[in-house]
Amino acid sequence: MIVPSYLSGHWVTPENPSKLTDVQDARTGEVIHQVSTDGLDIASAIDYARETGQKNLGELTIHERALKLKELALYLGEHKEELYRISDATGATQRDHYIDIDGGIGTLFTFSSKGRRELPNSHVIEDGPWEPLSKDGSFIGTHIYTRIPGVAVQINAFNFPVWGMLEKFAPAFIAGVPTLVKPATPTGYVAEACVRLMVDSGILPEGSIQLISGSARTLLDHLDYRDHVAFTGSAATAATLKSHQNVIEGGVRFTSEADSLNAAILASDVTPEDPEFDAYIKVLFTEMTAKAGQKCTAVRRAIVPAELVDAVADALEAKVKDKVKLGETMGPLASFDQQEDVSAAVAKLEAAGGNKRTIGDVPEQGAYVAPTILTWDKDADEVHNIEAFGPVVSILGYRDDQDAIELAQRGKGSLVATVCTRTLASEYAQGIAAHHGRLHFLDRDDAKTTTGHGSPLPMLIHGGPGRAGGGEELGGIRGVKHYMQRTAIQGTPNHVTAVTGEWHRGADIQRATRKEGDHPFRKPLSELKLGDQFASELRKVTLEDILEFAEKTGDTFYAHTDEEAAMANPFFPRRVAHGYLLVSWAAGLFVSPEPGPVLANYGLENLRFITPVTYDDSIRVELTAKRITPRVTDEYGEVAWDTVLYNQNDEIVATYDVLTLVEKK
Amino acid sequence: MIVPSYLSGHWVTPENPSKLTDVQDARTGEVIHQVSTDGLDIASAIDYARETGQKNLGELTIHERALKLKELALYLGEHKEELYRISDATGATQRDHYIDIDGGIGTLFTFSSKGRRELPNSHVIEDGPWEPLSKDGSFIGTHIYTRIPGVAVQINAFNFPVWGMLEKFAPAFIAGVPTLVKPATPTGYVAEACVRLMVDSGILPEGSIQLISGSARTLLDHLDYRDHVAFTGSAATAATLKSHQNVIEGGVRFTSEADSLNAAILASDVTPEDPEFDAYIKVLFTEMTAKAGQKCTAVRRAIVPAELVDAVADALEAKVKDKVKLGETMGPLASFDQQEDVSAAVAKLEAAGGNKRTIGDVPEQGAYVAPTILTWDKDADEVHNIEAFGPVVSILGYRDDQDAIELAQRGKGSLVATVCTRTLASEYAQGIAAHHGRLHFLDRDDAKTTTGHGSPLPMLIHGGPGRAGGGEELGGIRGVKHYMQRTAIQGTPNHVTAVTGEWHRGADIQRATRKEGDHPFRKPLSELKLGDQFASELRKVTLEDILEFAEKTGDTFYAHTDEEAAMANPFFPRRVAHGYLLVSWAAGLFVSPEPGPVLANYGLENLRFITPVTYDDSIRVELTAKRITPRVTDEYGEVAWDTVLYNQNDEIVATYDVLTLVEKK
Repeated sequence: MIVPSYLSGHWVTPENPSKLTDVQDARTGEVIHQVSTDGLDIASAIDYARETGQKNLGELTIHERALKLKELALYLGEHKEELYRISDATGATQRDHYIDIDGGIGTLFTFSSKGRRELPNSHVIEDGPWEPLSKDGSFIGTHIYTRIPGVAVQINAFNFPVWGMLEKFAPAFIAGVPTLVKPATPTGYVAEACVRLMVDSGILPEGSIQLISGSARTLLDHLDYRDHVAFTGSAATAATLKSHQNVIEGGVRFTSEADSLNAAILASDVTPEDPEFDAYIKVLFTEMTAKAGQKCTAVRRAIVPAELVDAVADALEAKVKDKVKLGETMGPLASFDQQEDVSAAVAKLEAAGGNKRTIGDVPEQGAYVAPTILTWDKDADEVHNIEAFGPVVSILGYRDDQDAIELAQRGKGSLVATVCTRTLASEYAQGIAAHHGRLHFLDRDDAKTTTGHGSPLPMLIHGGPGRAGGGEELGGIRGVKHYMQRTAIQGTPNHVTAVTGEWHRGADIQRATRKEGDHPFRKPLSELKLGDQFASELRKVTLEDILEFAEKTGDTFYAHTDEEAAMANPFFPRRVAHGYLLVSWAAGLFVSPEPGPVLANYGLENLRFITPVTYDDSIRVELTAKRITPRVTDEYGEVAWDTVLYNQNDEIVATYDVLTLVEKK
Repeated sequence: MIVPSYLSGHWVTPENPSKLTDVQDARTGEVIHQVSTDGLDIASAIDYARETGQKNLGELTIHERALKLKELALYLGEHKEELYRISDATGATQRDHYIDIDGGIGTLFTFSSKGRRELPNSHVIEDGPWEPLSKDGSFIGTHIYTRIPGVAVQINAFNFPVWGMLEKFAPAFIAGVPTLVKPATPTGYVAEACVRLMVDSGILPEGSIQLISGSARTLLDHLDYRDHVAFTGSAATAATLKSHQNVIEGGVRFTSEADSLNAAILASDVTPEDPEFDAYIKVLFTEMTAKAGQKCTAVRRAIVPAELVDAVADALEAKVKDKVKLGETMGPLASFDQQEDVSAAVAKLEAAGGNKRTIGDVPEQGAYVAPTILTWDKDADEVHNIEAFGPVVSILGYRDDQDAIELAQRGKGSLVATVCTRTLASEYAQGIAAHHGRLHFLDRDDAKTTTGHGSPLPMLIHGGPGRAGGGEELGGIRGVKHYMQRTAIQGTPNHVTAVTGEWHRGADIQRATRKEGDHPFRKPLSELKLGDQFASELRKVTLEDILEFAEKTGDTFYAHTDEEAAMANPFFPRRVAHGYLLVSWAAGLFVSPEPGPVLANYGLENLRFITPVTYDDSIRVELTAKRITPRVTDEYGEVAWDTVLYNQNDEIVATYDVLTLVEKK
């Protein structure tokens, strides 16, 4: 059966393909699928994404898209057993399914939640703070993110057909960019099953996702600067893609996650008697055996004190012997090609000086590789350069921590390193952070709670410099921004307000005072407009007010209570009002006491006291609707109010944002 | 005279170069310099940067480096006349010197100021917020930026020999990354003069800057994933560099700023009678004539209502006739090659349908090009593709604003566009922001205060997608981060505290209570440690307290004063204490009243009210030293205190950061 593609809104299969590629069951070698892209109209699919996909996604706000991700996650959760069963043939165990399938679904949940909590409910993300560009405030600048106007192409690796797709799909979808997935052939049928569920769910706007099952050598021919390619796979393929004319000259945004010889370092402050030692062995064990070691993030280089190389190898070997049975607790590799590649890599490492231990029996049928430990008693470039993408780890000795740092650096850029230490985290971070996308610090306190060396998390970035491909994915809303263009915006406060959807100081206001009525706190979200402002009268602060506030609150700091000491302070003219008095009084000045659409003041941001207020000064407040964020799922939303306190001379006393919850109607 | 290079701490000139390139005076054609890189040891220079440069810069904190930039800016400011005179030979007028030389110095000032105001005084920038990764708080995550461990190579264009160098040098220097400059040959002698001043100033640590005068075709052969290349110049050269094996496979970080056919749009809401029309003509005039149009950001395409093409051309022509005299108010191009290139480009545009008007007389001697307007009455790809890098602008008509948006997009990615509009900023931003690095909105209100279409500002990003090179520079501290690696950090709160230099909740504390004494407010910066904590006793809130606070402050919001109405509110159990009462009382609970090292509470961040406090509840506060930032130039610094309010059940009532100024000693 030929695995179908999903292009331009239709499932398609080549009719009489001239070229077919077989896909085998990793457990048995049986041919279970074929793929071909003969005659598929990729160019039209790209146009369809740019037009239909962009249009339909553009009709939803960021929060609406985020909410759909949650619905999708729930739907896939209900159908995950189907995906487990289809994925069995890839050699994945149930534990591996949790990583790939549940991990992928979990990523959707995280992005759904972060999209709604951390991003505005609109189409534009302001990347502030804004900058004054003229003295009179008539010309200001800021930055915005808007979605790229093209398609998010994913070219994925074989090891995580579901997670690898969803971890790229989720941020692109939140950004509002349609996705085109090109999974790896050996496990592409699992991705196909997942895309089918996504389409059948009816949750996604038409054009949100397309799928190419099979090779797509000409894919990049159709892309340009509007588009984004996220590649995961070998460094060699990454180089080919990155050299494509449309990347070099055409401005295609290209990011890759490629080979990585990740290190796990046992720092010099840990002894075999410490609980850290066991935690360290457990990391090596997990990374060697989960997914049969076929993870870009797996540990390839265990870097340990020279005198502990054998102790570490022995402990790891014992643990593997105890826990692993091939075909039961550890599966085969995903393909027979992979099996061959790993054997060849191990042979090269052995030839370069690695002392090999293989553990356990290999079943006769299936693409199995036995867990393999290589210990090294000499230096060799190969151990830092050759990635055996299977259950294989090298153990190398170091002289001191500086030597360990230099050995880790010889990976020439990695996705992740574990450093097992109690006291040397800062030193190691300074030595190797810039060579890594992620550092995982381990000691007795997080040994039980760690999410693991090898698990990229949706809220943290995944990627790494150099050999690791130079890319960055995930990282919460950082990942969303990868699918957006950052643009500097200059103009009047009115221009910037119109572009960002957030009121900027100096933009038009609709002003109300107590006398005139029409307080913006009386307006529900449906009526409230950016720039709706309340301006209070002046209120005079007396010395008695200050002293009484000191007494009642207990805040008897000398600047409020001791004239002489206050005058000796470099910042105060004499006794001054408490900052907390000022913001409390400001609330009294801007309050609208009766029940109304404003439900609560849930917080405050960016409070800065600019000019001290001493007794006999007066203060007044201006409060302006700055950011209005209706929630998709509640009958209320957030409103941030730009708040400025002035004194009787119109000098700014304090500025801050008051955060409120306001009803929609 | 051969222009010297400055490599590995020495000024060097090839001894008997086999190849020499002549450099001419743009005004006269006289050969005034020669360049050659024969036999220069580039490989050693790269090593020198990676070793000596990295080491010396690493010994300074971010603030210390920022302060040096200010010293350098002052020093160059004192010597700028020398640079003006040397730069005269490039064809630059005094107005052009202000852009290039004063603009470059101003960039140093801005980065100095932003580096100290917006970045920590350390070596690590935390890119928060941190993320809880385990329920018990023992495993958390965050992100950090640390400097890349290599060299920042600049390959610059001929048009801004000083600004083009300093705008890249400043952020790299703040990040702590040594720079190697390769200026363009035609004006490299001006960059050489500036580097000489920088070196002679004695301000910069050895290894901070190196200079290659002349061609350096093999430069990229020596670079790898630790290094960064920022290229400015032609798209063709960018493509060659980007195809280099060390970029494709070696992971060199490569960014480019290349061709750009920037648009200036006169939106449909502007008529020739509006003041906006004059402002628009002024933009076209300035961009055409400043630096003789040799700016990457200059307007190449004026996109105006079809019926106004002639009116705009006439108005522009009249203004140019009135203001420009070649050789006086407008200089020659920077080289005779450029003169030829521009003439060839104009010829192509004319052949494609542009109707040419040239304005004024061209002096016989020197690389002059007359201001040239091309009006278009038909569609042609050429006008969107051919960049005439001189005083040349095309004027094209559009049918409606959507058509104008599509015409702007046909630039295939640009550095900047001006949109002259009162009311259509949002529509234009949605249509073209993702195709641009910067949008400049113009109307009567900023016509006088705008910094201009063509001026990149140090606080805003400079760069653009697609044809514009896909790069991003400047943008305040965004630009600093381009020279740093972002790394996810996972570990215990202690690990993360050690790595970031910022206390994270759950990390070790040194606790004091009122009874025990040793309040952290009694400690100057020299004694204060991250994790120093003060914990208060409980204080009970009575209904009388709430009512009295309402009366005194005037904040009589019903949730504090009306039991029935409060109970009807979805968030409150009954009448509750004001949030402002809680934070005021918290200050009373944590205060240390007598004069001491804490000088002032200058602000507050991230205040969130979590659990309402009603009467008869009690509150207590824990205040922990979270971030300590001693200033380089003052006898005090900033301390941010993590502040948590709890109720009598140890539920979190509120969280925030208290910002204080604390003396060093």
